[in-house]
Amino acid sequence: MAAQTILFDFTLDSAKTADEKQRQEVAKILRNELEHVFPQLELAYSMESPENGYFSVLHENKATIITCRIFQHGLLTVNVEYFLPAGKEPIMSFDTMRTMELILRQKLDSDRSKYLPPIKRGGYIDIYMTSSDERIIEYDIDKLVYEVRSPFQKIQILHSKTLGNMLLLDELQNIAESDLIYTETLMGRGIENYEGKEICILGGGDGALLYELLKENPKHVVMLEIDELVMEACNKYLNSICGDVLEKRRSDQYEIVVGDCVEYLKKFIGEGRKFDYVFGDLTDIPITGAPVGVDWDFIRTIFEHSFKVLKPDGKFLTHGNGTSCTESLELFEEQLSLLKPKVKFTTSKAFVPSFMEEWLFYQVSFA
Amino acid sequence: MAAQTILFDFTLDSAKTADEKQRQEVAKILRNELEHVFPQLELAYSMESPENGYFSVLHENKATIITCRIFQHGLLTVNVEYFLPAGKEPIMSFDTMRTMELILRQKLDSDRSKYLPPIKRGGYIDIYMTSSDERIIEYDIDKLVYEVRSPFQKIQILHSKTLGNMLLLDELQNIAESDLIYTETLMGRGIENYEGKEICILGGGDGALLYELLKENPKHVVMLEIDELVMEACNKYLNSICGDVLEKRRSDQYEIVVGDCVEYLKKFIGEGRKFDYVFGDLTDIPITGAPVGVDWDFIRTIFEHSFKVLKPDGKFLTHGNGTSCTESLELFEEQLSLLKPKVKFTTSKAFVPSFMEEWLFYQVSFA
Repeated sequence: MAAQTILFDFTLDSAKTADEKQRQEVAKILRNELEHVFPQLELAYSMESPENGYFSVLHENKATIITCRIFQHGLLTVNVEYFLPAGKEPIMSFDTMRTMELILRQKLDSDRSKYLPPIKRGGYIDIYMTSSDERIIEYDIDKLVYEVRSPFQKIQILHSKTLGNMLLLDELQNIAESDLIYTETLMGRGIENYEGKEICILGGGDGALLYELLKENPKHVVMLEIDELVMEACNKYLNSICGDVLEKRRSDQYEIVVGDCVEYLKKFIGEGRKFDYVFGDLTDIPITGAPVGVDWDFIRTIFEHSFKVLKPDGKFLTHGNGTSCTESLELFEEQLSLLKPKVKFTTSKAFVPSFMEEWLFYQVSFA
Repeated sequence: MAAQTILFDFTLDSAKTADEKQRQEVAKILRNELEHVFPQLELAYSMESPENGYFSVLHENKATIITCRIFQHGLLTVNVEYFLPAGKEPIMSFDTMRTMELILRQKLDSDRSKYLPPIKRGGYIDIYMTSSDERIIEYDIDKLVYEVRSPFQKIQILHSKTLGNMLLLDELQNIAESDLIYTETLMGRGIENYEGKEICILGGGDGALLYELLKENPKHVVMLEIDELVMEACNKYLNSICGDVLEKRRSDQYEIVVGDCVEYLKKFIGEGRKFDYVFGDLTDIPITGAPVGVDWDFIRTIFEHSFKVLKPDGKFLTHGNGTSCTESLELFEEQLSLLKPKVKFTTSKAFVPSFMEEWLFYQVSFA
């Protein structure tokens, strides 16, 4: 079940949109052209104002409704909206849209025009995601593979035709089968040496980081993940990126502990247990809080506890944010600067396929 | 100069949208909530029909116009549109949108809702591109670096915050500074051995393929590019991917010929000149034709001539299309199957950052 909204716009000579009479002329050209595609078009309503130009509602049988605005600054927008029952063909094909755009561009003497692929609204699977810097990205998702609500979050596995299975937590993209580069950049493969090292992973429920670390022959890895159901989902549907580590749960070389990582960090601090590497592989938003954005107190708590279990030459490795999201990255670095004892950091970056953007990663150590 | 269109939708219990009275109730809840954001909201028009539900137009001073539809199948769509002068703050911030969505979701007892980042319309720089399988992707383009119209095509260099400079030909994305993987997959780096080989590139005006091939110590590369202005633009703005090959134009190891590749292929055929590798690095659409999609006759002509200048154990390497674009790939392979003498092919694929999708590449040789 979905509605389709198709958005066209045309840049016009502002002399053409400056007064009411000329706007009427533009509206007439538009309507004539629309009638080729929608023969039973009727005008339902129109509105004029000297400051805000022309607005009208056209419709065909009240089913397809077309609104158009002529802004006096020299811009015409046309929005076509109708309900498309599952399995039916769209009313406007790409060819129809393109043809209408080209003809109108010519008839309106427009030197710039655009139409967007139809926006699908109301579908149960959400195919539109928002990048860290608030851009719209449509994914080629064709299937909801799995969905469950754990005590902590909504867990979904969606299938993308080109990215493979994707893990979404509370509707945010976490990792996909396409994202080995994410894990390799987080761990600094080829730069860091994990052989014989003691490692602690905070979070990491998808198992990919643990799986890749074990290939580098560490002494021991302990992974602290709160959500049993995330691990079950990833073991089943993200097998290609986590191997059997979530299935087995432990070996001589690793142990997965199901629990709150902050509690376990406190326990390690009490015992004086120390690591060569601690990985912050948690979601940005504490899963116990309300989903209102990044919680800096939570992140700072994680930092503080992590550095108390790090050896003097140890490293804390974690993901930051999209590289174009400079404000958020500055806030992140501000949190780092507040830590005592002082820390220093380096960064690395990688284009992560399932994020459709470049991501920044941090390597933090004692200053 | 741009208009903003913000799209919200809410899935409703279809019992709630089944009859006129109940739709009126939903409309009332929506209007009350909208008035928190738009205090001077007025109802301009409404329309009802048993088959097509409710539609209304609300506005604030005729400047912000809000249309809403309640489809009786259980879906409410709300479209907010206004003009945003350059440098002004948007009327609805992300927080406002998110809050409105969450409150309405609760008040309407909706179990699924969505809003998209505002769609910017009418800007001179086009930030929305369409993937090969007709998905909408918004880029983080912040600058038009260069634009010129050559005798063959419109050439643009746009700057993306994360992809670097991008080359667009007739508004289609070609290559960006982020796309070494594109060139490496096209040439099969690490798989093919170019040492001492004779190579011909058809097209390749961005210079990236030539630049990378020369690192592998071939005997000689000849590149046939029709558009002088593309090479000038890339030499200046895509320097990081083409080095100085477009600046110098020739050395002992290579030569760039400005001309129609089909004419030169005919000349080579006449001379009996043969290559170990021929690269098809042209745009899909012949630049002399009308921009109406892929021209299979042109592509087949290129194939036929290319195989006539290939040594018996030579290879023709070229790009295909997005991997999710199966129909177009089948048509491409159909063209290959029509060739005489018979050919066989293998494929490889890579996620190309600036395409924001996975791309398929072909390696074709005599069967």
